[in-house]
Amino acid sequence: MDNKKATPVSTLGEFGLIHHLTDKIELQNASSLKGVGDDAAVLDYKSKQQVVTTDLLLEGIHFNLMYVPLKHLGYKAVVVNLSDVYAMNATPRQITVSIALSNKFSVEAIDELYEGIQLACDKYGVDLVGGDTTSSLTGLVISITALGEVDEGQAVYRNGAQLNDLVCVSGDLGGAYMGLQLLERENEVYKVNPQEQPQLEGYDYILERQLKPEARPDILKALQKLEIKPTAMIDLSDGLSSDLMHICTQSNVGCMIYEEKIPLDYQTKRFADELSINPLVAALNGGEDYELLFTIPIADHEKIKNDPDITVIGHICEADKGLNLVTGMGSTIELQAQGWNHLKKNEE
Amino acid sequence: MDNKKATPVSTLGEFGLIHHLTDKIELQNASSLKGVGDDAAVLDYKSKQQVVTTDLLLEGIHFNLMYVPLKHLGYKAVVVNLSDVYAMNATPRQITVSIALSNKFSVEAIDELYEGIQLACDKYGVDLVGGDTTSSLTGLVISITALGEVDEGQAVYRNGAQLNDLVCVSGDLGGAYMGLQLLERENEVYKVNPQEQPQLEGYDYILERQLKPEARPDILKALQKLEIKPTAMIDLSDGLSSDLMHICTQSNVGCMIYEEKIPLDYQTKRFADELSINPLVAALNGGEDYELLFTIPIADHEKIKNDPDITVIGHICEADKGLNLVTGMGSTIELQAQGWNHLKKNEE
Repeated sequence: MDNKKATPVSTLGEFGLIHHLTDKIELQNASSLKGVGDDAAVLDYKSKQQVVTTDLLLEGIHFNLMYVPLKHLGYKAVVVNLSDVYAMNATPRQITVSIALSNKFSVEAIDELYEGIQLACDKYGVDLVGGDTTSSLTGLVISITALGEVDEGQAVYRNGAQLNDLVCVSGDLGGAYMGLQLLERENEVYKVNPQEQPQLEGYDYILERQLKPEARPDILKALQKLEIKPTAMIDLSDGLSSDLMHICTQSNVGCMIYEEKIPLDYQTKRFADELSINPLVAALNGGEDYELLFTIPIADHEKIKNDPDITVIGHICEADKGLNLVTGMGSTIELQAQGWNHLKKNEE
Repeated sequence: MDNKKATPVSTLGEFGLIHHLTDKIELQNASSLKGVGDDAAVLDYKSKQQVVTTDLLLEGIHFNLMYVPLKHLGYKAVVVNLSDVYAMNATPRQITVSIALSNKFSVEAIDELYEGIQLACDKYGVDLVGGDTTSSLTGLVISITALGEVDEGQAVYRNGAQLNDLVCVSGDLGGAYMGLQLLERENEVYKVNPQEQPQLEGYDYILERQLKPEARPDILKALQKLEIKPTAMIDLSDGLSSDLMHICTQSNVGCMIYEEKIPLDYQTKRFADELSINPLVAALNGGEDYELLFTIPIADHEKIKNDPDITVIGHICEADKGLNLVTGMGSTIELQAQGWNHLKKNEE
């Protein structure tokens, strides 16, 4: 890193930096009429409906540049927004990206961030159509807004879960949280002894879950092919407990989830063992898995049961029964929604 | 201020705060199908085209809470985004608002901010449909994205100015900058002697220009009524020099602007006199006036010349002539685009 070129942003100025970051952008969606460079971008969704979602990420709160490469950060910042679009059963088409930078960031550093942003745009077929670039007194701030399209009547909300619906998740859970624990452990070791090599071997999967998560358009496609429309859907950003709580509260239902059904990867379990924690906690409260959590009519069970990427983890019950986890030992405990309560953390 | 109630945000938590801030929101636009509360908002623009614009505002860079009341800040943060929508000849319909807060902000303080946000939404007929709420280590961050609609073919870009077009501005210029100078002067006095009363009398107009600017939908309506479609348009956020530069560069033209035509309010001139600075500098480089700068065909001169809110300040010429200001003394000087170069300021 040290021998890399580090051009001060001041050599470009704000307009120069914007030009530098955006002049190679080519719009790829028919709905993107005009991108960066005017007071606003211009879009045309024709007869489609549109979804819009936004996230604000701050250095020191949402990411630690000690162990998160800027390229990965840019990629992830885009993906977490696209994940929200997919969770509406919609297809993302455009993003805007605003960044605030302190003077520790060189043009090359910002280029790395935008490489990651562009990589995510390319992978998910999304156009970067606007944004804002400014300075910051203390660190990096990233604000991304994603726009997507959905056919009329096809949006899936959090409030549609019905009694006896099956509760399903894609992929596996808790990996992103365990990856974060690993990165933080190695960062602590590094702070004490910078010469020590980080011990990351054998944990590439959970590291990738944390550093370079992917959204799940493939699951939407699979459901479409199986002719299943979820009754409710959310993406797993805050952890299974919180996100289930959102679906149950908004749908005015309760749920029964089975511990033994919750999909956990081998590395998630192994590293949890190493830290002597229950991997279930990572799945329930860890967050950042960006898998889809959704409910489907029980009549669709036959269609879905052989899909290796989708796991039925429980079912919807009456609201007065609450949110329950049936443990491997057969006892039932009430789920507590915790999530990433940054505000509480900050105020302790 | 001191005897006001100050409830820590931690008593609500993140989800509680979001609920507190958004549960009274009523959607007013037909295009807002679903607002706050799901993974994304859902919009339906039918056959209309859509514009999207975004701004990122940081405490210490864009605003100083020593002299900017939170309610005004919320109002202004919305208005500056709507101004960008109007500058596309479009009508704003929705905004998303993301905020990051350090623990110096109480629930009551955030309520004041949102009162201002809601006031702007009500005044301009805009729905708050989403956002993000998180914590910050150092201060307040506000990120707003505005969405608006425009009929196909009616969007006005920066790149359409033609040879001999008239260059027009709405309202008067430089007031917001002089208001800022006044607030900063009084803030310096206060820092030295907190007992001293601020000397703000007779300057209500320039203070309002700085603290509570308005966007100009009335100008778009007036132009529509006069059957004039601007050939190029931008809102004056960075100062006349920078914003003219954007139009001229993108339209590949030059311009001649006449000093004596630039509209200045009496208070702007008087306070500039008091500080022994040229009020023209405030108009050219001050920014934040949020007036509209636009070009119209010379054939439309008759239609526009009696509108008291619109001033013709010059005309478009060949690109190789550059951007020129003809002074009151008849000499011609080249305009330098400066704008708010936060990045350069920060790096000096």
